Amino acid sequence: MEESFAGAVDALSGFVLGGGKRIRPTFAWWGWRGAGGDPDGPLADAVLTAASSLELIQACALIHDDLMDASAVRRGSPTVHVAFAERHRTQRWLGEPERFGLAAALLIGDVALAWADDMLFDSGLPDDALRRMREPWQYMRSEMLAGQYLDMLTQARGDSSTQAALRIDRLKTAAYTVERPLHLGAAIGGGSPELIAGLRTFGADIGVAFQLRDDLLGVFGDPEVTGKPAGDDLREGKRTLLVALGLELAQASGAHAATAALHAAIGRPDLDTGTVDEVRALLHELGAVDAVEQRITALTDTALAALRAAPVAEPAATRLAELAVSATKRNH
Amino acid sequence: MEESFAGAVDALSGFVLGGGKRIRPTFAWWGWRGAGGDPDGPLADAVLTAASSLELIQACALIHDDLMDASAVRRGSPTVHVAFAERHRTQRWLGEPERFGLAAALLIGDVALAWADDMLFDSGLPDDALRRMREPWQYMRSEMLAGQYLDMLTQARGDSSTQAALRIDRLKTAAYTVERPLHLGAAIGGGSPELIAGLRTFGADIGVAFQLRDDLLGVFGDPEVTGKPAGDDLREGKRTLLVALGLELAQASGAHAATAALHAAIGRPDLDTGTVDEVRALLHELGAVDAVEQRITALTDTALAALRAAPVAEPAATRLAELAVSATKRNH
Repeated sequence: MEESFAGAVDALSGFVLGGGKRIRPTFAWWGWRGAGGDPDGPLADAVLTAASSLELIQACALIHDDLMDASAVRRGSPTVHVAFAERHRTQRWLGEPERFGLAAALLIGDVALAWADDMLFDSGLPDDALRRMREPWQYMRSEMLAGQYLDMLTQARGDSSTQAALRIDRLKTAAYTVERPLHLGAAIGGGSPELIAGLRTFGADIGVAFQLRDDLLGVFGDPEVTGKPAGDDLREGKRTLLVALGLELAQASGAHAATAALHAAIGRPDLDTGTVDEVRALLHELGAVDAVEQRITALTDTALAALRAAPVAEPAATRLAELAVSATKRNH
Repeated sequence: MEESFAGAVDALSGFVLGGGKRIRPTFAWWGWRGAGGDPDGPLADAVLTAASSLELIQACALIHDDLMDASAVRRGSPTVHVAFAERHRTQRWLGEPERFGLAAALLIGDVALAWADDMLFDSGLPDDALRRMREPWQYMRSEMLAGQYLDMLTQARGDSSTQAALRIDRLKTAAYTVERPLHLGAAIGGGSPELIAGLRTFGADIGVAFQLRDDLLGVFGDPEVTGKPAGDDLREGKRTLLVALGLELAQASGAHAATAALHAAIGRPDLDTGTVDEVRALLHELGAVDAVEQRITALTDTALAALRAAPVAEPAATRLAELAVSATKRNH
């Protein structure tokens, strides 16, 4: 490969190795184990490689997402477009640094997406396993991109309904992060339709519950533990189910002052701590926090029931039940 | 798939079906025929589908390229980011129209890249053919992206050397447009190493020659025939071998005035017709035009020699020789 391309490849490998919770590979791995995959068997290494390729898709999603949102920081470091704009500025290159940063982040994200496929297909999996995982692989990438698109469209339209928030949660988090990785792993392992259906139901519900926990932490989380400033999601104007429920409950009960206060606070970059506290109190009073907590509990219950009902091999069944609890009860 | 995603999918299908010369699928098809592929045989439909997937990669390349270059028009229509910014403006949605356009073009390009893989792997090709075409498929996408990256880096660095221009031509046009599509087709057809090596040499040389013809047309082409304003490549400041040779020849002969005139003209968006004519005259006088024409002839000769020496089945051998001539002698 062309030597000058090394800068792009270095940036990508730094990004992928620099952090992340490895959630998607973890679910893919346990999906495979759930289908009876043997961690000491001859396929284990190939499955690990295949599962790891999900981190490259996630790199594309995050690098392009940061570009769309014009975010400056990711995992404690400058985002890719910002880092490349800075490099351009330092080197006193020709043209606009921001345009250079945009182009670099765009191409590096594309490389990640293309190389995810390459890594998967070079993982060493046999042809029949590759054929079986085409379906979840295809859906997963399309659902991720459709979720991002829907998210952006929903924000542009100012749609703050609970339906819109849930649709985005289902595509962007549940399908892409939990359901399809499990499906992928189980498909590689040659799992039965019954196993796959059970894991998918489990994944879809846990995925939404995971996102709802994230929404609560984005508003109520302890900055010391989450690593994000208190109320950051409010400042960013994120369209979460929590906020959507707050608005709906306020409207339903005719609480005009509360509706106005929520609308005024959400998406204000300069929101002060006092107002964040007021919004928190409002979301509690309106019953939005309780409603979200109840939904998390209900989703976790249905997820665990689906898991119990499915023919999931041990120790995957136990491990997935533990993952479900830690993903929905965590404080960071 | 999510209903709101239809807008993105419509834009992509409109883009792909709206035009283009279908160069890459054509070379992939003839690569397969050159390996003895039977157009009336049972695999022909699958090969056509697989070859057509190259148009989706090209859609990603163009949609993202237009975004990087902030181009407004493509194939006579607004570019994707411009069209979506306009939609945002017309609908009076929230936020900045340009940011919305950027996000839409970014995601639609990503969809095209992901779906290119899906289309290829769902084409109906048997496992052994799919396995054989992994290598050219992987190289082709990486070379396309590396070429784009190198192009952008070269412009930023103000590198106007002939070496840099040739490196970009080799990756961005030759490898991605001719060599790898031929390789892909021949690999699907189970062509021998000898056949593949021959087709690749042919493709690499014809690809560069094709680009050099493009460079000449970008400066000397008849606007009535090319559909582009006269001297448009000069205004855009494209780093072509033609211009690089002009600069090198001017420098080598100590023609300071010519060097200064070229530097002053290239990349000036408001370049008038008179100055375009002066630059054209200069490139002729310096011998840059002759040098490029000679190189096109030499590359076409070596390409045709490689084609003749390779065990290419008829009628592919004849058809590829014709394509070589029409790609390098065209006037549009």
